[in-house]
Amino acid sequence: MDDPFLDELTAFAERLADAARQETLPRFRAQAPVRNKAGALFDPVTDADREAERVLRRLIGAMFPKHGVIGEEFGKENEGAEWRWVLDPVDGTRAFICGVASWATLIAAEQNGAPALGVIDQPFTDERWIGRRGSASAYVRGGARRACRTSGLDALTRARIVTTDPRKEGYFTRDEADAFNAVAAKSRVARFSLDAYAYGLLALGEVDLVMEASLSHHDYAALIPVVEGAGGVITNWRGGPPGTDDRGRVIAAASPALHRSAIEALAEIGEW
Amino acid sequence: MDDPFLDELTAFAERLADAARQETLPRFRAQAPVRNKAGALFDPVTDADREAERVLRRLIGAMFPKHGVIGEEFGKENEGAEWRWVLDPVDGTRAFICGVASWATLIAAEQNGAPALGVIDQPFTDERWIGRRGSASAYVRGGARRACRTSGLDALTRARIVTTDPRKEGYFTRDEADAFNAVAAKSRVARFSLDAYAYGLLALGEVDLVMEASLSHHDYAALIPVVEGAGGVITNWRGGPPGTDDRGRVIAAASPALHRSAIEALAEIGEW
Repeated sequence: MDDPFLDELTAFAERLADAARQETLPRFRAQAPVRNKAGALFDPVTDADREAERVLRRLIGAMFPKHGVIGEEFGKENEGAEWRWVLDPVDGTRAFICGVASWATLIAAEQNGAPALGVIDQPFTDERWIGRRGSASAYVRGGARRACRTSGLDALTRARIVTTDPRKEGYFTRDEADAFNAVAAKSRVARFSLDAYAYGLLALGEVDLVMEASLSHHDYAALIPVVEGAGGVITNWRGGPPGTDDRGRVIAAASPALHRSAIEALAEIGEW
Repeated sequence: MDDPFLDELTAFAERLADAARQETLPRFRAQAPVRNKAGALFDPVTDADREAERVLRRLIGAMFPKHGVIGEEFGKENEGAEWRWVLDPVDGTRAFICGVASWATLIAAEQNGAPALGVIDQPFTDERWIGRRGSASAYVRGGARRACRTSGLDALTRARIVTTDPRKEGYFTRDEADAFNAVAAKSRVARFSLDAYAYGLLALGEVDLVMEASLSHHDYAALIPVVEGAGGVITNWRGGPPGTDDRGRVIAAASPALHRSAIEALAEIGEW
């Protein structure tokens, strides 16, 4: 789809991701709290999150002063603008503090509240996913860029399923954990603790189903264009758009048929 | 400690890890079963496992024909030899089939049954850990080599704890899962699905405690020298050497004090 302004925003979003790397990567695996000269403690993950969001807001403000910004660290700014950026500089702070490279920088652009553009960036493994409305999603590593597609798998029994933490009373309520485990029991294999990286793996065809709860707007905004542009489906646990329930439940599937099977399995278990 | 023969074995183990990379890395994220001309299906992870072990056995046989070999895929060969190699070409096959770079090639050398040398190699992230009896463990990435140390953390309440799968009736029995969750509840944060990579992160000071069960000789042999050479402690859940229980339970800790706290917490819960 020809859309020169979206082209411009996409190139800009990649510049944002590059700038975020400068703030996050040097602080990754530099976990020992370091005391500065004045005696204050540095917290590398909090610093990475804040400094990256500061840089992103500065760049957006300079280039697109009329655009809105919603960020995890510094709140909302002009959120009713036609275009707004949704930022999570370090999604997966628990992974970050454990030295695990499944955290990501998430950058989304929304037009009149609808997802238009999303970037998932993992600096340590040098992996980046770019999704944009009406285009095939792209995967970039080591300077090489290619289109990426989900597996297209349709059978739940063969699905590789992911959630961040399958335990009760964490991200999941007791009922949500039971529901995840019931769906996982029908699938082939389950993996955990992958954060936003799981949606990148889905877009690459490496996993087939991701189920989560407790996600905020800045957690899922960038995922939607990446998953959809790779041929996947991403909704809440009822099949509606992410963010239209009160629990931030998200399910992403490699194909419409697999999505339908998972939603049906969930509906048999409870109301979501 | 001066030990020219162990120097030679260490250099050779790195050559083995390089050779394994040639077999595993091209098959990683090439998951779609591919049908060959005769109609048979290729299974990339099984192929990676088998072909890598074949290459390793060939190299060992050519260089050290009197040494024994224990491998996950092709069993035991001359296992009573003074020196024997313990090989797991792809530890973490579930991660491998999900495109997650926490699988590793594990290469150990034992002298008269005692751990002498261990290599943990992750080709996609280009990370390698090398542990040898009496020396500081080394971490190698992108050609840069440095000594690595655990965090030295001693307080369980601040520990970052890892296991592969916290659910009951998988790797863990019901009692083992309850015990893991009780220890995790006292700790700071838990991460999952990291396989052998977790022990590398422990040796880097990035996580503090790893607890697993259902591990085989080829799963833990390479981990022992890496963890111990980085200042950590690795035992079964009673504090004895790994492999001296009947459930393959392993606990690795960043410091003797943290290890003691975890073993005490486990002893309060049950007998292991």
